[in-house]
Amino acid sequence: EHTCILNLSCDDKPGIVAAVTTELAALGANISESNQFWDPLTNRFFMRIAFRVPARLSIEDVDRALRPAVDRYEMRIALTDQARKPRIIIMVSKFDHAMQHLLYQIRVGWLDAEVVAIVSNHETCRADAEREGVPYRHWPVTKETKLDQEARLLDLAQESGADLVILARYMQVLSDGLSKRLYGKVINIHHSFLPSFKGAKPYHQAFERGVKLIGATAHYVTPDLDEGPIIEQETQRVTHAMSAEDFVAAGRDVESRVLAQAVKAHLERRVMLNGHKTVVFQK
Amino acid sequence: EHTCILNLSCDDKPGIVAAVTTELAALGANISESNQFWDPLTNRFFMRIAFRVPARLSIEDVDRALRPAVDRYEMRIALTDQARKPRIIIMVSKFDHAMQHLLYQIRVGWLDAEVVAIVSNHETCRADAEREGVPYRHWPVTKETKLDQEARLLDLAQESGADLVILARYMQVLSDGLSKRLYGKVINIHHSFLPSFKGAKPYHQAFERGVKLIGATAHYVTPDLDEGPIIEQETQRVTHAMSAEDFVAAGRDVESRVLAQAVKAHLERRVMLNGHKTVVFQK
Amino acid sequence: EHTCILNLSCDDKPGIVAAVTTELAALGANISESNQFWDPLTNRFFMRIAFRVPARLSIEDVDRALRPAVDRYEMRIALTDQARKPRIIIMVSKFDHAMQHLLYQIRVGWLDAEVVAIVSNHETCRADAEREGVPYRHWPVTKETKLDQEARLLDLAQESGADLVILARYMQVLSDGLSKRLYGKVINIHHSFLPSFKGAKPYHQAFERGVKLIGATAHYVTPDLDEGPIIEQETQRVTHAMSAEDFVAAGRDVESRVLAQAVKAHLERRVMLNGHKTVVFQK
Amino acid sequence: EHTCILNLSCDDKPGIVAAVTTELAALGANISESNQFWDPLTNRFFMRIAFRVPARLSIEDVDRALRPAVDRYEMRIALTDQARKPRIIIMVSKFDHAMQHLLYQIRVGWLDAEVVAIVSNHETCRADAEREGVPYRHWPVTKETKLDQEARLLDLAQESGADLVILARYMQVLSDGLSKRLYGKVINIHHSFLPSFKGAKPYHQAFERGVKLIGATAHYVTPDLDEGPIIEQETQRVTHAMSAEDFVAAGRDVESRVLAQAVKAHLERRVMLNGHKTVVFQK
Repeated sequence: EHTCILNLSCDDKPGIVAAVTTELAALGANISESNQFWDPLTNRFFMRIAFRVPARLSIEDVDRALRPAVDRYEMRIALTDQARKPRIIIMVSKFDHAMQHLLYQIRVGWLDAEVVAIVSNHETCRADAEREGVPYRHWPVTKETKLDQEARLLDLAQESGADLVILARYMQVLSDGLSKRLYGKVINIHHSFLPSFKGAKPYHQAFERGVKLIGATAHYVTPDLDEGPIIEQETQRVTHAMSAEDFVAAGRDVESRVLAQAVKAHLERRVMLNGHKTVVFQK
Repeated sequence: EHTCILNLSCDDKPGIVAAVTTELAALGANISESNQFWDPLTNRFFMRIAFRVPARLSIEDVDRALRPAVDRYEMRIALTDQARKPRIIIMVSKFDHAMQHLLYQIRVGWLDAEVVAIVSNHETCRADAEREGVPYRHWPVTKETKLDQEARLLDLAQESGADLVILARYMQVLSDGLSKRLYGKVINIHHSFLPSFKGAKPYHQAFERGVKLIGATAHYVTPDLDEGPIIEQETQRVTHAMSAEDFVAAGRDVESRVLAQAVKAHLERRVMLNGHKTVVFQK
Repeated sequence: EHTCILNLSCDDKPGIVAAVTTELAALGANISESNQFWDPLTNRFFMRIAFRVPARLSIEDVDRALRPAVDRYEMRIALTDQARKPRIIIMVSKFDHAMQHLLYQIRVGWLDAEVVAIVSNHETCRADAEREGVPYRHWPVTKETKLDQEARLLDLAQESGADLVILARYMQVLSDGLSKRLYGKVINIHHSFLPSFKGAKPYHQAFERGVKLIGATAHYVTPDLDEGPIIEQETQRVTHAMSAEDFVAAGRDVESRVLAQAVKAHLERRVMLNGHKTVVFQK
Repeated sequence: EHTCILNLSCDDKPGIVAAVTTELAALGANISESNQFWDPLTNRFFMRIAFRVPARLSIEDVDRALRPAVDRYEMRIALTDQARKPRIIIMVSKFDHAMQHLLYQIRVGWLDAEVVAIVSNHETCRADAEREGVPYRHWPVTKETKLDQEARLLDLAQESGADLVILARYMQVLSDGLSKRLYGKVINIHHSFLPSFKGAKPYHQAFERGVKLIGATAHYVTPDLDEGPIIEQETQRVTHAMSAEDFVAAGRDVESRVLAQAVKAHLERRVMLNGHKTVVFQK
């Protein structure tokens, strides 16, 4: 027995769930978790369904069985086998807290993923990569080398079959071209409660404004900086007695947590894109 | 077109969802929301499914269509029509904040319910009931009258077809007999984060212990005081500089909110009993 | 014995606290609560000190005793007697939840204030005012009448000796002139986590952006709309399954709570202005 | 110029603050932060005051100057120089998340402390200690060796001048004798929202009870297990769909955060004991 996850979206009409679950039942599959969402504004239907299938059936068998339903309802689907460990690339600059938290969560098994590589424009985190037995790619970025380095990143993502590129406080903005090519496969952690304080030094902006809460936002990367679909957000109380540096320090925990939650949700196929928003199916 | 909600639970086996949704599709029903949970410890399966059915079909038609599936899987089901406004009885003593919050949320439509009666062992809240146009039952309770008054409550609940009795800071403990007869239909708000500080004066107990957070718990009432299945909980920060009375004051908001959330979840059929725990299907 | 509160601010130098507390000790006053903040960026010092003075001493006596210290350190001070109940004006339009919450908190004594009047550009809340025994001023606002109505408001504020004007979801923007004249004496509740979603329909903006948290912000009113010094903020989780109307409903609680907290802090003299920011001395 | 912190407690009477601050002003000291609390139940007064003193004055000079006031009011005081880095001993068993978080926060400077040693009843964390350049003491504990090992710990604490022993998920219960000798100098993280779920396997207890929030509590260790004065607590939402193991995983973050907050507050001398409760002066 192994567990598969099916994500599907299509225009809503009667019979979708019946069609899918009837096929699954015919295969002897047993549903362990199912979530769905109907967007009344667009009449779009979203579903995530996890099910155990008998060991003799491959994922291709499942896919074949579902084809008629997929075609009839013009579904967009993704079908994954939980036995295949997802692959991720972590990108980092100098601030390493978000990366450390990801590595720790992988070590204790909360995040189920294989780190294909840690990519950085600095040497700072090499020792951490080596300790984890993960390849470290030091790819410094200047205006001249940026596109070359992005080409290398794209190659790496494709060759390794990476499911996700994580910008764990990677301080370089991806080019429009790369953002588009990897759309839906790159998650960034922004250190503010978006849409407040886009761009550089958000904690200092927040300090200037005198807010009483700071926050962090994990989102998919798009060509529009800090405008991508939001996956997860959290806030944290601050006071007038805290400096901008205190905000930075208090923010480290929130950033780490929010990014890890977003990454876990993505890798467990709980996040689906709905235009410039996300559907996030919580456990 | 009207919307129905089906709650079902049964032992898990393949084909349950397919059986139900296939019948619904055959009726031309369209699923607008669906949640399910499989408890791996008991192999019990829980489902809540909301669907729009054509106007020409009554809830009896739907029930009839589902019967074969219900029988085959030995499901326990509840089928309700959203058009029928749920009926509630609110019980209160002297502290009225939780009741006021419920009445307000009904007034603005966030809670969709008809208040059959406000029952109290005091006269205190009569004016509020009158303002809302709700019958007020002043039923004082002494050791001698307790069982009589409970008999009146039971009559009222049955005659009015009440879906829920809400103990909105009602300071009398229900008898074992009544707790059992109305099991799953009475929600209490306890003013602590259970299982901490059961029984009387929980804020004073919390103050004595020097906790840094206080809380509130909405739960179904059982003969075991403050041991019933928990529906909703929340906490709130307190400090050493706050007195027990400050805890009481800070707790009013949390209690009101937690109770209202639990009531809404119950009335929308999002809460299902799973032994002495609850399954709560969030929107 | 009665309790006084002294708020002071001045440029920081050694001896300020000693000077003040020595005078208070000489009067036989006993400090019950004291908070201070030194802003390292501006070298400005802020202090709030609550103390019990013997009954035979008036607030004028206290003021006189403090004068030398005040002059020596060029302090700006405010000295208030807790026995004097603060006076407030509540302004409201059609959404009444924030006002209801304030009125309730006054009724149960958590907020210690006398409502001088409820002012509205609609008739909607008259019955609530009457029930509380509070004068209701229905002052409709059009482009033509706006300045006249503001003049009436200013008169009312001055004649009644109001300590605070509260915009409890009052949907008219105050003119620049009035904002300036009443600076530091008008608190508004904005229904977003500022600086996100300034201006109209913030919940609909938030819904459009697909955020995972909504919020509310209480701030002093300035001529720059939604840019005034922030007193209190809070956020609340939302999901993809919630509509803009669900955001509005979920936001009611947060708005009510945040506004009440800010009003309480203001009336207890816990809020001090520090440029375009606030110092908020928590209990 | 250097910064000192004075903590004092005494029975409340007029003149305490004046006496202390007048002495400080006479020394040319400048107050940078001050907090105080008067407990109306016990009439006990608590104060923490941080101040910058001219470089030519030693901490002994400051102490000498304060003596008359200390004697007059029978104060209990602690006077510390911020220039002296506090020393800590971290104790850990197999679950290392809380320790890792402490080590990280020290590395980035949020926690200002020197780790004198990591003590464990297992070999598991040796590599982490070595990476940080911290001595690792592997002291296995059996019923027979327990008191000997505790004697070694006491020696270590005394010889190293440790300010704090941190039980970062150290799974051995300290003996009554040691708990008493080190009272106020040992902080434990308990993985529940105390007083709920004392003792072993709190997450499994919480799962059994069906709570909707889990939590963590940092407290000083006393001979009464899990009954010591609480320093910090936090909760985190869980759902019916989460297993006891999911609770454990969700709890790791909360535990780490709560422990680090409590340790920071202790090391910054923000925590004062008030009977079996704490006064925690927040920044």
